[in-house]
Order: sequence, then structure tokens, then C-alpha cells
Amino acid sequence: MDPRIREHAEILVDWSARVEAGDDVVIDVAEGAHDLGVAVAAVLGERGATPLATYGSAELERAYATAHSGEFTEPTHERALYERADSVLRLGGGRNTAENAGIPPATQTAHRQAREAVREARYATDWVSTVHPTRSLAQQAGMAYADYREFVYDAILRDWSSLADEMSRLKDLLDAGSEVRIRNEGTDLQLAIDGRTAVNSCASVAYDSHNLPSGEVFTAPYATEGHVTFDVPMTVRGEPVRDVRLTFEEGTVTGVTAAQGEQVIREVLDTDEGARRLGELGVGMNRGIDRVTDNILFDEKMAGTVHLALGRAYDANLSDGESGNESAVHVDLITDMRGDSQLEIDGETVQEDGIFRWE
Amino acid sequence: MDPRIREHAEILVDWSARVEAGDDVVIDVAEGAHDLGVAVAAVLGERGATPLATYGSAELERAYATAHSGEFTEPTHERALYERADSVLRLGGGRNTAENAGIPPATQTAHRQAREAVREARYATDWVSTVHPTRSLAQQAGMAYADYREFVYDAILRDWSSLADEMSRLKDLLDAGSEVRIRNEGTDLQLAIDGRTAVNSCASVAYDSHNLPSGEVFTAPYATEGHVTFDVPMTVRGEPVRDVRLTFEEGTVTGVTAAQGEQVIREVLDTDEGARRLGELGVGMNRGIDRVTDNILFDEKMAGTVHLALGRAYDANLSDGESGNESAVHVDLITDMRGDSQLEIDGETVQEDGIFRWE
Repeated sequence: MDPRIREHAEILVDWSARVEAGDDVVIDVAEGAHDLGVAVAAVLGERGATPLATYGSAELERAYATAHSGEFTEPTHERALYERADSVLRLGGGRNTAENAGIPPATQTAHRQAREAVREARYATDWVSTVHPTRSLAQQAGMAYADYREFVYDAILRDWSSLADEMSRLKDLLDAGSEVRIRNEGTDLQLAIDGRTAVNSCASVAYDSHNLPSGEVFTAPYATEGHVTFDVPMTVRGEPVRDVRLTFEEGTVTGVTAAQGEQVIREVLDTDEGARRLGELGVGMNRGIDRVTDNILFDEKMAGTVHLALGRAYDANLSDGESGNESAVHVDLITDMRGDSQLEIDGETVQEDGIFRWE
Repeated sequence: MDPRIREHAEILVDWSARVEAGDDVVIDVAEGAHDLGVAVAAVLGERGATPLATYGSAELERAYATAHSGEFTEPTHERALYERADSVLRLGGGRNTAENAGIPPATQTAHRQAREAVREARYATDWVSTVHPTRSLAQQAGMAYADYREFVYDAILRDWSSLADEMSRLKDLLDAGSEVRIRNEGTDLQLAIDGRTAVNSCASVAYDSHNLPSGEVFTAPYATEGHVTFDVPMTVRGEPVRDVRLTFEEGTVTGVTAAQGEQVIREVLDTDEGARRLGELGVGMNRGIDRVTDNILFDEKMAGTVHLALGRAYDANLSDGESGNESAVHVDLITDMRGDSQLEIDGETVQEDGIFRWE
């Protein structure tokens, strides 16, 4: 076994999820993530934790969803599992990223909505999502399998403690600020952030950060005004989307165009009221990620990009008792700041052309 | 996909587990059982049930168990999952039946004991164990993969309702009887069954039968006297065992020899007090199973064999409030009745040379 799989498992269990002896842990193993699952199980054994493996199979989910009449009921047994779990480790890495392309969007939405309490229960644990490099993900990235493995481990096997220190600079600026302005070729957008708390997302639950790799600082904006063009190519619900341009008035989307995939973005926007508002503003700071691979877990962390999410806000950005934007969806879209661009906080330029002022 | 996989899934969901709309179902998918998992997920979707897939990976379990110090704690999240589940469908079929051969027996026993409450919670559901034909199981059976698939589907795709009718004859005789005597070349054994209730195991939870395939009638004996030779070759805890001969006095094993695997049988017997007594007497009646394949799920159902299990008795054989033999283990061993043999109930021959008197 590639020794990096073992290193990955150790970072996931120790740095990211902070698993301790006696913890009840769920390992969710995607169809192609078996080898990482074995490595994680071994590390959990060494730590004296207690795992249960679930099977994150896109083919099973597709078979189930397409056969169902569409009036889904909540899986209360799955919710009970998460309610008793200390950590949930999702090991992504399937065999076909297009597996759910044939599921009608209405079915996907209905299924997601029926699972909302389950999702909340999972988010209440020390959950972490990571990904094992598979041929399917290499294909989606347009890369050879060997090159893709290098890319993934460059992004994951980092000095997270040191990156956390650097990211705390941006977090402090965002926490002190009231308004963010983002400008690039197709974008001039203002977002209120007053009163919100930024998360230093350094891939550890100790920092309220739940993705491995991570390397972003994010907060929950509101009262968004202006327009933004997401020029980083993405796949949303199995459909390619290109150059989505959104117009915001008083925090809500009032206009949408796209060079490709406009229909799927409209479906996202029509999910519920909160889907037309932003739940997240994130700034990518992981320099191990230097190219787009059509995988949100990596793309949104790329140094020199900014992403915005339609839909639900994370509780970590809100003060106690405050309610942020609520929605059944959370769909990230990314704009590239490495060209002619400015990221400003309260009128001061923090990043220009993708380079922070302290770099 | 082989259409028999779909038929298998339908029998499992409808005949065996009696799944209904709204049921919360756990599908436990072994490493090689993916295709059956997809078919089962589709059938559950059609029935309006709600599945969660767990990953029954022998490699993950081995990695965990060998890395652990050995003082296992109970997985309370897994217990909570089963406590809220209506059915648990175990889809066996791994990639290496020897995968746990390297786990020290003491570790296996400690792990099993820590999971006793989990097992009880699973047994309290409408659980069914079945198997998907894999190359690994074909290899263990000493058969080509194509031939093994035929064998498995011959055993599983049966007219279960009609077999249930035939098996009820033997159940009625056992329920009315007080003592069973088993004789063949290496066996002369008497077992008390007075007051115990036989189970017509026709592969449906509606009959307290939890294996697919099934095709046996079993009860919980006690006060065993005499000796028995298990001449059907088996694998116990990854070790081959051959011609195990046990001597019983007052219900308890007082002597053991074996041509092969004596040590593993002694380890089973030393688990706890109940491991030295019998928990089950079963009579195989599935004529679709006509050869030994070194897989207990099939071998013990073979028409013309009798099996006895060391360890725990099933509640289904006991009257309300009665406690049967208790143990952390349940290990089946099989003797072939197709040679010169008699199976008697209260002195009357019910089966001679493997043929029932009504055949």
C-alpha cells in the first residue's frame, strides 16, 4: 500500500477529527475508497476508538432513488446512528462522478429534503469529509491517474498547523470588518459580514473546519448587492456549469445567466427561499492546490480564488442563537482572482490579483 | 446484470424479510456483494422502504482488530442503529474467506464479546443473512465461478412456500417428541427436546427463519449423552476442521478429538461455560443443495445432513421466559446421514439413510 494512504489516515483521524480512545466513529466508505478505509480502520484501532463502516455507494443510492415513488420518508435509524456517534469520517472517491446524472432533479431534491434531520445529526458530530484519489476523479479532473494521486496528496499532506497560523490573519481581518467587496473582470459585489465570525478552515474540527483538504477562510455574508461571474468550471448535480453570472439585490438573486448549465442553477435557486441567498463567502488559501480539478472539495480551497455558496449558512459563522440563511441546499460557485482583481474589507485592499498584501 | 440477482433481491426483501413501506432497513454489503446490494436497494425503493447501507468489509475489520490493544468497547452507535431498524439484511460474499486467519483467536473472542449487545439488538430486528456468489466463495467450495453461481441460485431461487409445507411435517414430530437419537458410523447420540419448539426454517422471518437460503428444521436440545462424529469438512474461524468427534455427558462436552483443527475447536469450547453445551439441533432439507461447499450457510441446509451447534440457543426454540443455553459463540458442525444412519424421535425412525419416511 502507498505509504501516503497511511499518512492521509493519520492526518484525518488525529489532526482533523481529533479522535480519542473510546470514541464511536462512523467511517463512510465510497465505492473506490476501500484502501483508505482499511488504513483509517487501522489507525482507529491503534487509538482505541470504535468504528462502524457505512457504504457510500453512488450506485446503490441511484438504484434506490430511481426505483422510489418520490415520497421519501426519513431514515430514523440512520439519524440514531449519527446521534450516538462522536465522529463521522466520509471517505469520498467513487467510480463514476456522473452516477446520479439520471436521477430527476425533483427526486434528488425530495430525497435531500427527507434527509434534512439526518444531515443535521451528522453535522452535530465531529464530522470530516475527505477523498481518496480514484480513476473516476482523475478523469473528471482531466488528469492521468498517477498525476492525480500526486495532486491529491500535495493538497492533503501539508503542514496544517503552519497554514492555520497564516489563515488566522485573514480571519482576524474578516472578524473586525463590516463589508467585503469583490471585484474582477465579471464581478463587482458587496457583502455585509458585520457581526459574523469567520472560520479558519484548516482541516480540523478543533477550528470548526470539516474538510480534508481544506485551506480556506469562510464566513456567512448577507445583504449582498451587485453582480458576480463564476468563471471556474464546475459540475453541479452531475451537470457541467460554466460562467454563471448572478445579480443580487437586497441579498437575493434577481438575475441569472450561464454559458452552460443555466437550467440546473435555476433548479437550485428554486429549491426554497434560502437557495436564492448566499450562505457562505470563502477565500481559498491552499497553495498545494494549483489547478482546477472539477471537484468542489479541492477547487474552493485553491489559493487565489473566492467562492460563494447559495443556500444554507454554517452555524460556526453565527453567534449563539442567531439564525443564518436556511435552505435544503448549499451549492458553491467559484471565481478566479488571479487576474486583475481586488478583495477589499471596509475599503482596504487585502488581496490584489490573487496575492495577499502580506505575501 | 444477471436477472437472477434481481430475483434473489425480491425473495430476500419480500419472502424473507417481509419489508413494508416505511420500514427502516440496514443493508450490510460485503466487499464482493455490491451487485446484489444495488438490486436490493432498487427493490427497497419500489417497496417504499428506507435503507442505510453498511460496509461488511473483512479487510477493514481485520485492520481494526489487529491494530487494537484488545480491550474493545461496545459500539453504542451501531447498537442505536439496529435498535431503530426494522430489518437488517446481511449480504455476504467477500473476496477472501481467510481474511481473519491472522487475527489472534483471543482478539476475535474479545471483539465478539464486546459486541454482544450489538448482536442482540440486530437479532431483535427482522434480520436475514444471505450471500452473493463471489469468486472467493467459489474457491472455498472448490468450484469454478460459473458452476458456483448455478449452485447458489439453485439453493436460493426455490419454491419456499412449498418447502415450508414439507418441513412442517418434521417440525410437528419434533414439537410432539421428547428425545432424539442420531446414529451413523461414528455417532450414537441422544438429546432431550421435551418442551422445546422447533422452527420451520423456510427462509422467512414470518417463520422465525433468518437465513437465505434456508431449508432446515431446528430446535434447542439439552441433556445430550453419547458421542458424535462430524464428518462434513468445515472451516471454523479460518481454520479447516475435519472429523471432529465430541463426547457428551449430562449435556456437556467431556472429550474432543479431530483429524484436523482440534485446537480451534478447543478454543471454541473454552470461550465460556455455554460453549461446551449444544444450542441447536438442525436437520437439513434443502434439495437444491447437493454438495458440501465449505460454507455453513449452505452446508447445514443440505438435504440428508444433521448439524449441531456448540454455544448459544435461539430464543425462537424456547418458551416465553425460558432461558436456553447462553454463550458468546454459536459454532455449527455437521454429520452426513446419507450413509448407514437413523434419525429417531422417541424410538421411532423418522429418517433412514438420509431419506425421510414420507419420501
